[in-house]
Amino acid sequence: MNRADPQAPVTACDQELALFTDLYELTMLQAYLEESMHDPAVFSLFVRKVPPGRNYLLACGLDSLLGQLEDLRFEQKDLEYLASLGPFSDRFLGWLADLRFTGDVYAVKEGTPVFANEPILEVVAPLPEAQLVETLVMNQIHLQTVLATKAARLVSAAAGRPVLDFGARRIHGIDAAIKGARAFHIAGVAGTSNVLAGRIYGVPVRGTMAHSYIQAHDTEREAFDAFARLYPDTVLLVDTYDTLDGVRRVVDLQERLGEQFRVSAVRLDSGDLDALSRESRRILDSAGLEGVEVFASGGLDEHAIQRLVSAGAPIDGFGVGTSMGISSDVPDLDIAYKLAEYAGKGRLKLSSGKPILPGRKQVFREQRDGIFTGDVIGRCDEERPGDPLLSKVMEDGKRLETHERDLDRLRKHAAASVAGLPQAVRALAKAEPPYPVRVSDALEEYQRRVREAIAADG
Amino acid sequence: MNRADPQAPVTACDQELALFTDLYELTMLQAYLEESMHDPAVFSLFVRKVPPGRNYLLACGLDSLLGQLEDLRFEQKDLEYLASLGPFSDRFLGWLADLRFTGDVYAVKEGTPVFANEPILEVVAPLPEAQLVETLVMNQIHLQTVLATKAARLVSAAAGRPVLDFGARRIHGIDAAIKGARAFHIAGVAGTSNVLAGRIYGVPVRGTMAHSYIQAHDTEREAFDAFARLYPDTVLLVDTYDTLDGVRRVVDLQERLGEQFRVSAVRLDSGDLDALSRESRRILDSAGLEGVEVFASGGLDEHAIQRLVSAGAPIDGFGVGTSMGISSDVPDLDIAYKLAEYAGKGRLKLSSGKPILPGRKQVFREQRDGIFTGDVIGRCDEERPGDPLLSKVMEDGKRLETHERDLDRLRKHAAASVAGLPQAVRALAKAEPPYPVRVSDALEEYQRRVREAIAADG
Repeated sequence: MNRADPQAPVTACDQELALFTDLYELTMLQAYLEESMHDPAVFSLFVRKVPPGRNYLLACGLDSLLGQLEDLRFEQKDLEYLASLGPFSDRFLGWLADLRFTGDVYAVKEGTPVFANEPILEVVAPLPEAQLVETLVMNQIHLQTVLATKAARLVSAAAGRPVLDFGARRIHGIDAAIKGARAFHIAGVAGTSNVLAGRIYGVPVRGTMAHSYIQAHDTEREAFDAFARLYPDTVLLVDTYDTLDGVRRVVDLQERLGEQFRVSAVRLDSGDLDALSRESRRILDSAGLEGVEVFASGGLDEHAIQRLVSAGAPIDGFGVGTSMGISSDVPDLDIAYKLAEYAGKGRLKLSSGKPILPGRKQVFREQRDGIFTGDVIGRCDEERPGDPLLSKVMEDGKRLETHERDLDRLRKHAAASVAGLPQAVRALAKAEPPYPVRVSDALEEYQRRVREAIAADG
Repeated sequence: MNRADPQAPVTACDQELALFTDLYELTMLQAYLEESMHDPAVFSLFVRKVPPGRNYLLACGLDSLLGQLEDLRFEQKDLEYLASLGPFSDRFLGWLADLRFTGDVYAVKEGTPVFANEPILEVVAPLPEAQLVETLVMNQIHLQTVLATKAARLVSAAAGRPVLDFGARRIHGIDAAIKGARAFHIAGVAGTSNVLAGRIYGVPVRGTMAHSYIQAHDTEREAFDAFARLYPDTVLLVDTYDTLDGVRRVVDLQERLGEQFRVSAVRLDSGDLDALSRESRRILDSAGLEGVEVFASGGLDEHAIQRLVSAGAPIDGFGVGTSMGISSDVPDLDIAYKLAEYAGKGRLKLSSGKPILPGRKQVFREQRDGIFTGDVIGRCDEERPGDPLLSKVMEDGKRLETHERDLDRLRKHAAASVAGLPQAVRALAKAEPPYPVRVSDALEEYQRRVREAIAADG
C-alpha cells in the first residue's frame, strides 16, 4: 500500500513522547525482553460502557496518535533518566535506544459514532511495542473522543445555528486545547477562538472583544466607536455594564455612522439570555437593524442551548466554553486497551465483570433506508452484511494513504454518520431502547473456547 | 532583586505558545496599538466561587506559567499565519514580532489554600501584554489548581497512607498529565506512574505490572515467577483471573523461593476492596507473610478511600487514576482574569452579578495557635494584621529568586498550609460555616468610588 504524506500537522506537545508511558509498561518490557516474548500481540481499544448522558461516542484522535507512533523514539536524556531509576539493565536500555513502533493499526475513521465494547482501534505489533504505547493510545483517543462526543451534542442542540469553541481558557491544558479545537470542528463546531489550533490544523478562528476592552476605555461608547472604526463588521459585546443599554449604544453608533455602519452582531454573555435576546432583537429591529445578529455565550451547555432554541429565542449563534472544553458532565469514559491475542492465542481476563473480546475484530454496521439499524461485533475475518467500520490505517509503523486525515472530509463524514443514527440516539435524552449492538455467534464461540483454555491452564 | 536560575524544567508543551491565545486578544491588541493604549494595567486572576464539593482550593501552576511568560515570542510562522487571517496590519505584525512579556507578577505561593475572590495572581504590565496572556494564564493556573485541589482531598482521605497517581491514561492530554503529576505531588501524592513527569520534574515514579503481562503468559503462576525473578521486591497484581487465588499463588511462590522471596506487596484492582483486602491480609498472615503489603486501586475517589480507611480495611496504599486526573466531580472552576486597573484608574464591571475588586490587592491570612482564623482581601498597600499571601515573583518579565520553585519545599509548604486550615475546612464534607473571607473597609470604599465614577461617565 502507499504511504501517506508525512507532512502531518504536529504540535509541540507531540514531541518527545517515548517516556509518556506508565512506569509499569517499561518494567514489563524489560521482562518481555528477558523472557524473549516478542511475538505479535493484538490490543483492542474500546469503551466498556456508553455513560449516562450520552447515547453514542464520536471516535476521534486517530491522526495525531498515528503521527506520535511514527515519531516514537527514546532520546539520550530519556535513557539516562531511566538508567538513574535503578531496575533497568544496560542491555534493556540499548534495546530501547533502537526501538521504533513497527506495528499495524486498524481503526474506525475519526468522526464515526461508536458504542460500548466496539473496538475504536486495534494495534497489532510485537508484544513489547504494543504494550509500551498503551498509555499514549488511551490518553489521546480518550481525550479527543470525550470532546468530540460532547461537541456533537452541542451542535445537535443548536439545530443548524453555528456553535463556536471558546474553551481555551479552562480546558485542561495546552494539548487538550489544541486537539480539542480540532475534535470540536470534526464534530460540527464552526470555529474556535484558539489561534494556535487555527495555525496548526486550519480550524477557522473567530473572536472580537472582551469585557476588559470596554473596561479599559472610560465609557462603553468610546470603546464601541474605536473598535467599529478599526473592524467595521465586528461583533460588539454589550453586557459589560447594562446589556440593553449596550444594545442601544449600538443603535446610537448606527445613527452616527449611517451608511458606514456594518456591525454584524451583538454578543450577550450573561443574564437571562432568552429575555435579553428578545429585547435586543426588538431594539435592533425597531431601529431598522434587522441585519445585526444576536450571538449568545456565557455558561452554555447543550441543554441550555436546546431550551433557548425550543423557546424560539432569536439567537443566531452560540459560543461555548467550559462545558464543551472539559465535557464537564461526562469528563471521562471507561476506556480500556486490552490484550486480546498473543502469539496466535486469544486472551482475556476472567474476574471483575470486565469481559474482553478475544482476537482481532471487526464491527459491522447495518442500515436500512439510510438509517443505521444496529451493529455486530464479529471476528475480523467474518463475512457479514453491513459496513465494516475498522480498516487498516498504519502498516509497519507508517500511516497509509487510505487513512483519512483531511479535516473537511472528516467533518462531512461525522455529519453524515451522526445523521445516520436513529433520531432517539441523536437526541440529548437517553435513548430507550439504546442502539442495538451484539456480538456475532462466531466471536462468542471463540470467546468461550479461549475461556475454557485459560480455565484448563489455570 | 536577583533573578532566578533560568534552567527551569520545561516541557515540550511549553514551547511556542504566543499563539495560544483567543483571537479576540489579538484583535483587541491591534486596537490598543491604534489607540496608543499601552499604559500599565492590573489584571487579577481569581476564582469566583469555591464550588460545592470543595472547601478550599490549592493554588498551583505558577512556576510553569512564569517560564512560559519568560519565553513568550511570536515566531515567523505565527506572524505569517496571522497575516493570512486578514484583519491584521503590517504595522501590528511588526510590533508583535518584537513583543516580549515585560510585566511584573504578584502571586500566592504554589500549594497555598485560597478561597473565593482571593487573587491567586495579579499581572501588572502594559495593557496589551497583560491582555495577550489572559488565555495562557487562566488555562495553566486553572488546570493545576483544579488538580492539586482534588489531590489534596485524596491525600487527606488516605490519612497517612501513600497515594499514587495512576491517571496518565485518562487525564485530558499530555500537558495535563505532565503538569498534573507535579501538582499532585505538591498536594501530597507520593509518586506517579508517569515516567515523563518523573524525568521533567523529578516526581518519584512508581509501577510494576498490568493485567496484560499476566494474560500474555499461559498461566498466572508463570507470570508471577518470571516477574519476581527479575524484580524480587516487586508488587504482584493478583486480580486478573481470581483475586484470592492470585494471593494464594503469591504464597506458593514464597514456599518455592523460601529465603529469596522478597515480594513487597499485592495489588487489588477490582471487586469489593474492603472484603478482598481483609481476605488477602488473612491469607498472607496465615502464611507468615505479614511483611507483604496490600495495595488497592481501581476506580477509587476520596470518598471510597475514606470509607475503606474508616472501615479499617487493611490497605497500605492507594493508586488513583481517573477521579484525580480529571477531578471528575469538579473538573472546572469559575476562574476569571479581570482588568482591575488601567492607567492608574480602578476598573470593574457592573452587570451580571460578577463583581470585580478594583486595583492591586493583597490577601491577609490571620491565625491563632497555628490555625488560620480567616482572610481579609485588602488593597495592596494596606497595613493589616495577618500574613500577606501575595508576593512579587516576576519583575520586568523575569522570575525573581524569591519565587519558590523547589518541589520538595512547595510540597512541605502545601502540607503545612493544609494542616493550618480549620478541621472542618480540611474535611471532605461541606464546611459549615465556610472559611471566613471578607473584604477590607479600604477596598470596599475604593470599589464604591470606582463604581460611582463609572456611573458618572456612563
